[in-house]
Amino acid sequence: MSSPLITLITDFGLTDVYVGIMKGVIAQINPEISVIDLTHTIPPQNLALASFQLGNAFPYFPDNTVHVVVVDPGVGSQRRAIACQTEAGVFVGPDNGVLSSALNQAKTVTVVELNQPQFWRTVTPSNTFHGRDIFAPVAASLATGYPLMAMGTALDPQQLVRMSPVPPQKSDQWLMGAVQAIDYFGNLITNIPAAALPPSWTVKLGEHLIPSGTTYGNVQAGKAVSFIGSHGWLEVAINGGNAQALLNCKVCDRILLLTPK
Amino acid sequence: MSSPLITLITDFGLTDVYVGIMKGVIAQINPEISVIDLTHTIPPQNLALASFQLGNAFPYFPDNTVHVVVVDPGVGSQRRAIACQTEAGVFVGPDNGVLSSALNQAKTVTVVELNQPQFWRTVTPSNTFHGRDIFAPVAASLATGYPLMAMGTALDPQQLVRMSPVPPQKSDQWLMGAVQAIDYFGNLITNIPAAALPPSWTVKLGEHLIPSGTTYGNVQAGKAVSFIGSHGWLEVAINGGNAQALLNCKVCDRILLLTPK
Amino acid sequence: MSSPLITLITDFGLTDVYVGIMKGVIAQINPEISVIDLTHTIPPQNLALASFQLGNAFPYFPDNTVHVVVVDPGVGSQRRAIACQTEAGVFVGPDNGVLSSALNQAKTVTVVELNQPQFWRTVTPSNTFHGRDIFAPVAASLATGYPLMAMGTALDPQQLVRMSPVPPQKSDQWLMGAVQAIDYFGNLITNIPAAALPPSWTVKLGEHLIPSGTTYGNVQAGKAVSFIGSHGWLEVAINGGNAQALLNCKVCDRILLLTPK
Repeated sequence: MSSPLITLITDFGLTDVYVGIMKGVIAQINPEISVIDLTHTIPPQNLALASFQLGNAFPYFPDNTVHVVVVDPGVGSQRRAIACQTEAGVFVGPDNGVLSSALNQAKTVTVVELNQPQFWRTVTPSNTFHGRDIFAPVAASLATGYPLMAMGTALDPQQLVRMSPVPPQKSDQWLMGAVQAIDYFGNLITNIPAAALPPSWTVKLGEHLIPSGTTYGNVQAGKAVSFIGSHGWLEVAINGGNAQALLNCKVCDRILLLTPK
Repeated sequence: MSSPLITLITDFGLTDVYVGIMKGVIAQINPEISVIDLTHTIPPQNLALASFQLGNAFPYFPDNTVHVVVVDPGVGSQRRAIACQTEAGVFVGPDNGVLSSALNQAKTVTVVELNQPQFWRTVTPSNTFHGRDIFAPVAASLATGYPLMAMGTALDPQQLVRMSPVPPQKSDQWLMGAVQAIDYFGNLITNIPAAALPPSWTVKLGEHLIPSGTTYGNVQAGKAVSFIGSHGWLEVAINGGNAQALLNCKVCDRILLLTPK
Repeated sequence: MSSPLITLITDFGLTDVYVGIMKGVIAQINPEISVIDLTHTIPPQNLALASFQLGNAFPYFPDNTVHVVVVDPGVGSQRRAIACQTEAGVFVGPDNGVLSSALNQAKTVTVVELNQPQFWRTVTPSNTFHGRDIFAPVAASLATGYPLMAMGTALDPQQLVRMSPVPPQKSDQWLMGAVQAIDYFGNLITNIPAAALPPSWTVKLGEHLIPSGTTYGNVQAGKAVSFIGSHGWLEVAINGGNAQALLNCKVCDRILLLTPK
C-alpha cells in the first residue's frame, strides 16, 4: 500500500500535547505515515459536530485514507471501539455516532469491534485516553496494510450507534430547515441539501428576507445572501461580514425557504 | 523534482475542516508532497496582513517551494486567479494583492492567469471555495513538476494588483513611521526597515520614550526597548511583557524615531 | 538513520509565521525530516509548563526523535544554548530549565553547549529568534545524523539549569499536593504520581470532597471524580464538564488526599 495517510478529528484542543502524543504513537509503529489534522477544536463531547466535520472532509481524501475521530465522552465505559471499511475510506473511533456521516453515505461497510490488544499500544489501555492507546495504534496498523479483520470481531453495521441530521420539512411553497453548523467566518450552514433547492428562492430567517445567489459578491458589502455552499448545503452569508453576529443566529435556529410559484 | 513542498496561508481559521480538505485534494494528486501551515488565522479578508506574513516567511524556504495564499473576499467574482514563478519560490493565489510582498521583492517574475481547468479539481469549480477547487490542485501540480505555462495564459506582472507598506517619512533628525503589525507576543513591528536605522536612536510612541537596543534583556523586566526584529524591521517590545497592552498600541499607530545629531 | 523526526514546543502561538519559518529552515537542510507540533500555545515564557508538556509527550516518540523546545525569555543574553542526548531522545533548547522533565528522567545524558556556528543558519544569528537561527538548524543536523559532539563543547549535565515539580507532602493519613497544570478540558492535573496512590482515597479540594475512581463515567454527569490520568498523575475531572470552572480552581491550588485507615 503506497503513501499511508491518517486524518484526525478530536476535541483535544491545541494547547495540550494529546494530539502530538497520538502522532508519536503512530510514528513509533510506522514513521512513513503522513498525518493530517482536520480539526481538534470540536467543542468537548459535541458528537454531532464531529460527525458533520468528518462528512465534509473525507470525500476529498484518497480512498485508502484512515480517518480517526476521537470525541469520546464514554471512554473507559462499556461503549465499543470500532473500525469500519468503506469504499471511500477507513473510519476508526468510538461507537457513539461520531462516524455516522461517513457510514450513512457508504455503499459498502464492513465493521469490526476493536478487541485485539496485540494491535494496541499496551494490552492494559488507560481508562481515559483510548486515542493514544487504541485508536492511534490501530489506525497506524490499518494504514500500514494490516487487514481490518485482524483488528477484531465482525459487527453488523446496523447495530452501530447512528446519528442523522433532521431532514427539512416541505410543502409546495416552502421548505422548513435549520442551521446545522456555523463556520469560522460566521456563515450559517443549513440542513437543506443542494438537491432540494429550486432555481431561485428567498430565505426567511427571523425578520430577515435574504435573496438567493451563487457567491458572496452577488450582493453589496454588508448584505446577506444565500447560496449552495462548498459543502453542498444551503448557506447564509454576509458579503464581507459575519452572518452569525449580524443576523444574531445560532445552531438549530429555524430557517424558512420560500420558493416562487 | 525532489521533495515537493507547499506552504499555506489562509483566513480559514482552525475550527473548520477547510484547510484539511485542501490537504486532502493535494494528497489525491501527489501524496509525496509535504504541506506546511504558515498561518490560518489571518483575520477574515485582511489582505495586507496576509501579504506581510508571506513576505516574512518565504525567504526561509527552499526555492522550489509552492506558497499558496487563500485570503479571497472576491472568490466567485471576476477577480483573476494567478500563479507566479520567481527566483525565490512559486506563489499561487487570487490576484488581489496578497502575493505583493513576494512579487515586490522578486528579481524575475513570470505570471500566468489560471484558466486551464484540466488542472483543477473539477471543470466546474464552486463559487466560494477556490482554495479547494483551483489553488490546491494547481499548487499540487506545480509542486509535482508541471510547468507554470501549462496552468494558464501569461500575464504582464505589471498588470497585477499590488500593495506596498507605506514607507516611513524622513528628515535629518527623525523618521516618522507606523506600526504595520503586532505579533502574538504583543511586539510592535513597524514599517521602518533595518537599513534605515542609525547606530542608536530613541523611539517616541505616544508619551513613551523608548531606548534602542539589540534584544529584550537590554532593559529591566517590564521596561520597553526597540531593536531590529527577526523580520528585519524596527520592533518595540517589553522585556517579559506585552507591548501592545502596556503601551496601549494598535496597528497603524504612528511612531517617531529620534536620531542623535 | 531512518525516518528523521523533530518535535516542536514553543510559546510562539498560532497567529504568526514563526513556527512555519522554523519548518522552512529545517526543510532547507533536510526536506525528508518530518516535523510534529506538540504545542505552540505555552503562555509566553512559562518555562515550567513547557517542561511539563515535554515530559508528557516525549516517552511516546521513537528514541531517535529530536525534541526542540523554544521558550526562551533570555534569548540574546548570556544564557547557554544546549543539545542533550539521552536513551529516550535528543533534546535541544535554551539552558533555562525547559528540558528538565526529560533530563530528570534520563538514565544517561550527554550534553553539549551549542557553539559551532557552521551548524547554524548564519554565523551571526539574530538576538531575538534563536529558534530559527540556531535551534532549528542544529535539530535538523542532529536528525540527519550528525553527531552531538560536532555541535559544541561537552558540558557536565549537573551544571544545567533544572526545575522539578514540588513533591507532595505526606503523613500516615493524607497526602498534600497541588494542581500542577490544567488541561484544555479543565481537568486538574496534580503533582501526585500514580505510584504514591493507595487503592482508594478521597480528594479534598476547597470545600469539595471528591471520590476516587478510574474514569469519568464512574460518577453521574456533572459530578467530580479523581483518578490516575493518562499522564500518570492524579487528576480531578467532572463527568461531562469542566473541573477548573465548576470547582473554581487554578494552577498551584492545594489538594489534600485523604486515605482510609
